[in-house]
Amino acid sequence: MKNIMFNANHSPIGAYASFTLGFPGAAGGPGMERRGPADTNVYIGVERREGGSYESFPFFKNEDDESKQYDVEKEDTQEQEGYFDQFPASEIERDFRVSSDSWKARDITFTLYNQVESIPDPKFCDEECLKEVIVPAVLAELTIDNRGCPNGRKAFFGFNEVEERYGMRPLSSGKMHGVGQGGNLAVFTLDQDAHPAGGFCPECILGEEDRDNWNFRLGKTALLVLDVPEDTKKTFRFAVCFYHGTQATYGIDTKYYYTRYFRNIEEVGSYALYVFDRIVEKCREANLRFDKESLTPEQRFMLWHSIKSYYNSSQFLIKDGEPLWIINEGEFRMMNTMDLTVDQLFFEMKMNPWTVRNELDFYLRNYSYEDKVRFPGSDTEYEGGISFCHDCGVANVFAPEGRSAYEKCRLTDCFSYMSHEQLVNWTCCALVYIKQTGDQSWSDSRKETLKSCFASMVNRDHPDQHKRNGVMGLDSTQTKGGAEITTYDSLDVSLGQARNNIYLAGKCWAAYVGLKDYFETNREAGLAKQSALQAQRCAETIRSHMTEGGYIPAVMDEDNDSKIIPAIEGLIFPYVLDLKEACREDGIYGAYIRALKKHFETVMQKGVCIFSDGGWKLSSTSNNSWLSKIYLSEFIAGKILGFDRKTYMEEADRAHVDWLTHPEHSYWCWSDQIVSGIISASKYYPRGVTSILWMEE
Amino acid sequence: MKNIMFNANHSPIGAYASFTLGFPGAAGGPGMERRGPADTNVYIGVERREGGSYESFPFFKNEDDESKQYDVEKEDTQEQEGYFDQFPASEIERDFRVSSDSWKARDITFTLYNQVESIPDPKFCDEECLKEVIVPAVLAELTIDNRGCPNGRKAFFGFNEVEERYGMRPLSSGKMHGVGQGGNLAVFTLDQDAHPAGGFCPECILGEEDRDNWNFRLGKTALLVLDVPEDTKKTFRFAVCFYHGTQATYGIDTKYYYTRYFRNIEEVGSYALYVFDRIVEKCREANLRFDKESLTPEQRFMLWHSIKSYYNSSQFLIKDGEPLWIINEGEFRMMNTMDLTVDQLFFEMKMNPWTVRNELDFYLRNYSYEDKVRFPGSDTEYEGGISFCHDCGVANVFAPEGRSAYEKCRLTDCFSYMSHEQLVNWTCCALVYIKQTGDQSWSDSRKETLKSCFASMVNRDHPDQHKRNGVMGLDSTQTKGGAEITTYDSLDVSLGQARNNIYLAGKCWAAYVGLKDYFETNREAGLAKQSALQAQRCAETIRSHMTEGGYIPAVMDEDNDSKIIPAIEGLIFPYVLDLKEACREDGIYGAYIRALKKHFETVMQKGVCIFSDGGWKLSSTSNNSWLSKIYLSEFIAGKILGFDRKTYMEEADRAHVDWLTHPEHSYWCWSDQIVSGIISASKYYPRGVTSILWMEE
Repeated sequence: MKNIMFNANHSPIGAYASFTLGFPGAAGGPGMERRGPADTNVYIGVERREGGSYESFPFFKNEDDESKQYDVEKEDTQEQEGYFDQFPASEIERDFRVSSDSWKARDITFTLYNQVESIPDPKFCDEECLKEVIVPAVLAELTIDNRGCPNGRKAFFGFNEVEERYGMRPLSSGKMHGVGQGGNLAVFTLDQDAHPAGGFCPECILGEEDRDNWNFRLGKTALLVLDVPEDTKKTFRFAVCFYHGTQATYGIDTKYYYTRYFRNIEEVGSYALYVFDRIVEKCREANLRFDKESLTPEQRFMLWHSIKSYYNSSQFLIKDGEPLWIINEGEFRMMNTMDLTVDQLFFEMKMNPWTVRNELDFYLRNYSYEDKVRFPGSDTEYEGGISFCHDCGVANVFAPEGRSAYEKCRLTDCFSYMSHEQLVNWTCCALVYIKQTGDQSWSDSRKETLKSCFASMVNRDHPDQHKRNGVMGLDSTQTKGGAEITTYDSLDVSLGQARNNIYLAGKCWAAYVGLKDYFETNREAGLAKQSALQAQRCAETIRSHMTEGGYIPAVMDEDNDSKIIPAIEGLIFPYVLDLKEACREDGIYGAYIRALKKHFETVMQKGVCIFSDGGWKLSSTSNNSWLSKIYLSEFIAGKILGFDRKTYMEEADRAHVDWLTHPEHSYWCWSDQIVSGIISASKYYPRGVTSILWMEE
Repeated sequence: MKNIMFNANHSPIGAYASFTLGFPGAAGGPGMERRGPADTNVYIGVERREGGSYESFPFFKNEDDESKQYDVEKEDTQEQEGYFDQFPASEIERDFRVSSDSWKARDITFTLYNQVESIPDPKFCDEECLKEVIVPAVLAELTIDNRGCPNGRKAFFGFNEVEERYGMRPLSSGKMHGVGQGGNLAVFTLDQDAHPAGGFCPECILGEEDRDNWNFRLGKTALLVLDVPEDTKKTFRFAVCFYHGTQATYGIDTKYYYTRYFRNIEEVGSYALYVFDRIVEKCREANLRFDKESLTPEQRFMLWHSIKSYYNSSQFLIKDGEPLWIINEGEFRMMNTMDLTVDQLFFEMKMNPWTVRNELDFYLRNYSYEDKVRFPGSDTEYEGGISFCHDCGVANVFAPEGRSAYEKCRLTDCFSYMSHEQLVNWTCCALVYIKQTGDQSWSDSRKETLKSCFASMVNRDHPDQHKRNGVMGLDSTQTKGGAEITTYDSLDVSLGQARNNIYLAGKCWAAYVGLKDYFETNREAGLAKQSALQAQRCAETIRSHMTEGGYIPAVMDEDNDSKIIPAIEGLIFPYVLDLKEACREDGIYGAYIRALKKHFETVMQKGVCIFSDGGWKLSSTSNNSWLSKIYLSEFIAGKILGFDRKTYMEEADRAHVDWLTHPEHSYWCWSDQIVSGIISASKYYPRGVTSILWMEE
């Protein structure tokens, strides 16, 4: 990796919180419910061996002397050269893992631990087990190797104010020492060599001759000052805690699920420190589990990085006593955006399938609707059917029932409705949940809905059953004459337009294939047959648009000549539904599969769907490429279509890692939308966990 | 007034909140518990008579197109020239009053109403009456004079996101329409011609062809769009509401008192609109009451402005069922800073004396301590006694018992202890509360404390009673060898050092005069006699330091030659204690009073205690001058010492108004510390209500 000074999320599970760290300057720290890093100073450092001056990891920016606000005619004091320095990046080593992150410089090592664990289903689980997994804290260790040094030294860990509302303060409770802000953010330790201290800046605190003055509260800085004895190697342990105990969301009133177990941040700290050993042990196990040898270093890096960012967006709530699982949409903060849910599906199915059920039920109950459909340019309305909103709200405020925060009418691009795509997404998620869990009772309870979904899909194909081709042909009346779009909302028409788009068509095929299997299994032979017919039609329509150039244009029959990688995206569903025969070149959809293979081979060349740096370009006509979707397509191309990773993905992944570790833009942790190698949108994003599929490579 | 585009607070009483408005740009809006303005965009405007384009008061900054975050390759759209303009300042008229504030441009008028009312003592009052006074809302009226115009026009009122945690949203409830952020900030109306709307910007909202799209939630902007019918004059009424329903402070857990009456912001809005007429009527009465003809326009402006800022810092809490009154310290946010309490005393005694009692009791119970005292340079400790902390905490976090957030040991200037000053401040406040209310039961309950205060003051004079001179001679052991300071912490030694300072000595004299009266009245003849002796000694010590130049140096016997106006500050207490004879030139302290008059006459010249612009300079050796203290000294010089306002204060007040309405620095509403005419610290400050004394002129 060329640059190790990138930001990463270190998040508790479901607390919508992160101790973001890694990027130089005031670029991280503890943050809750944010669009991006908390942008505060984090101080982790130690006195020099010779004593009297300090060195620190470079996670802060030197600021103006805050005390001058109080003493306006005060003269500038010349800061003593070398008194409080940052380690140069060249002296820092970083050991980045899925469940830990560690920085070392000279004789100081700082490690953060974030859990990567399955969340037990709250309906059936042992509460102690759940409590341990969702404790809203990340753990930290600071080791000073003071062996051979005849002097005791002071080390320190702390941070600056993050929000204005509450002041920084010492926060001690029983044997526990801590510093924090109000009752929301805190660092605790049980180490009796740790001393809470406040002041205008770390230099001011460390320079205090009288420790009594560490009770000063006006400054923005709070540290735990740590006494390291002479000639020893000493490790201090901390819990970095988050707490939002009151109403968490509006529109629908909820609280954080963890408030069932913790009444305040002190209780979080004392519990996290109590289970410290066990959590660290679990983190080490997770590191091993996700350090799969068959993956390239680039794959491992991106897998781990994306998982860390996913957890930052996770928000486990309780509503009227019932669990409610929300994944916020990174910098955009939309809640449970359905077209992200379908990509995060693979991760959640592996980790905690009940969250998928929870999301699907919540959508069905609160954020589904019935519409009609129209041909483009026509006012005639035909039967539509059920569909699902784009999201459930934004920025901790739920949208009204049946509406998203995002969708607007009378548009043909970004912010238009995604009725067909979300219908297909909900359907695919439901099918995968049922197939992978075997949850027959949920399956039974959702059978009528799945029938409605099928009917709704078919209605969006063509009102005349004889004219159906398996592909979306009509737009929802929700658009009021506009045109539906897809999840690729900020790309050009090649991926943005829903109707006749081969990306969405490929997903429709997958849904039909899955529905056929579902209806068969659930004694609906007639519907199974109809589903199979639609799947065949869809596959044949797409295949029939193969051009002489060996590719299928992104939008069929509409004078479009874009070449897109996500033509193959739908193949993931038969694979995860264990209907792998549908993906075989010699299977019943063999002609379709062969066409997609041909298409993929054709488009995978520089200047078409490969950037000059080797990274994948989702559409030949847009410079905006999305890593979450690249990971997914990589898996499909490699594992399902059998393309060789060495040839097709290794150079690309080196470019993808460069994108994420860009010296400037890696401030944003894991991010999705990359325009010509530059992180440009969908920053601080959860969707990258499509990389979990690589674990099957 | 040269510049009317200055910020002012418009605050509910006790909600620690303000709808700050008046300064151009993104410089105001609804804010809670803040160091300064909320810095958001406020949109108040109307469609032009010819239709299709808009004009607005200039309380916003045009921002980058937020929608580009979602659509990164979107091309810049050329904004239509003149589509959404700001009124030039030259076309705006402002009618600024204590209880209202109004802006008019062409045919649009916007008025805010903030209550200036006595808060009934919660122990004895009618709850309905209390509820009406502390409802956390300010009211607003928007009038569009559309007479003569054949078209209906759209007007609007709204604002941008203030904090990141919660999104902007429409907020309607029953017949009430509103927009707001999360559940904390909202604007409500009962007008059925008002329509909640969200979007990326006001232009985007007003330009929507389909009102359905006003449900869009991703943008930072929320407006109430108002339909104004053709050929009518129409007034819309709003309640701008604030709500913080959960734990308000840490260290000591409290909630806002208003949470007893309102469970959420919708209830605040519906109540505020219900009592709209009555509150507006009260505001108009307050405007008349404070529009005292005997005051100059400059006095009236500063009186009103300072009252508005005081209320912004007011925070009426409930703790274990008991009321707790906090005045936060403006930008510094320290809580109930005792040396501000003593200056805000005159205002609170006039408006709601129970808050003074509440502050004094809270200090006595939680933030008093016992110390010893030492002579400078000596380690020998002598008896000290009771004193009081500088403050009770900072930024919504209470300090531990017996400690302030501010005071540090081993210092001789800013942030040192103020033990003697706070002892005198508490004593003076208690005496004034007792004398002006006649609350004998409280007086009796605090008699032992007042005896302790007297003993503590005397101990700080000299351990040997025969060597006492009435003036502070020893520093608290809290300073650990440092030196105590005064409230004038950021000034030079002339006002900053406590020991031998004639400012503090003058206040000691006042406390002794008051204690003599108190002990006399309360059958403590011996203590009364001792108090009288101390008062005589003190007066004589100060008087005896009169120099040949006709002034008394700021610090006696310490080689100091500064000239300070606050030499006269102590005189306020005999005046408000109705012991006016103590201030007579021919009374028992006549020599002292004559010396102070002489001193005042001497120092009041340009280059000494007058700036070149005519404004008052508290100390000849510092350019930092504090308006709250200037107001107080103006009153003393005029009303008590009989100096002529025309000669001494009128030119000065014109300069003081210029300071506050500076085109750049008036962003900070009423502010205290002015360095050479520039608002420099103690911004957004409550202390200016010393101006209330002018009401007696």
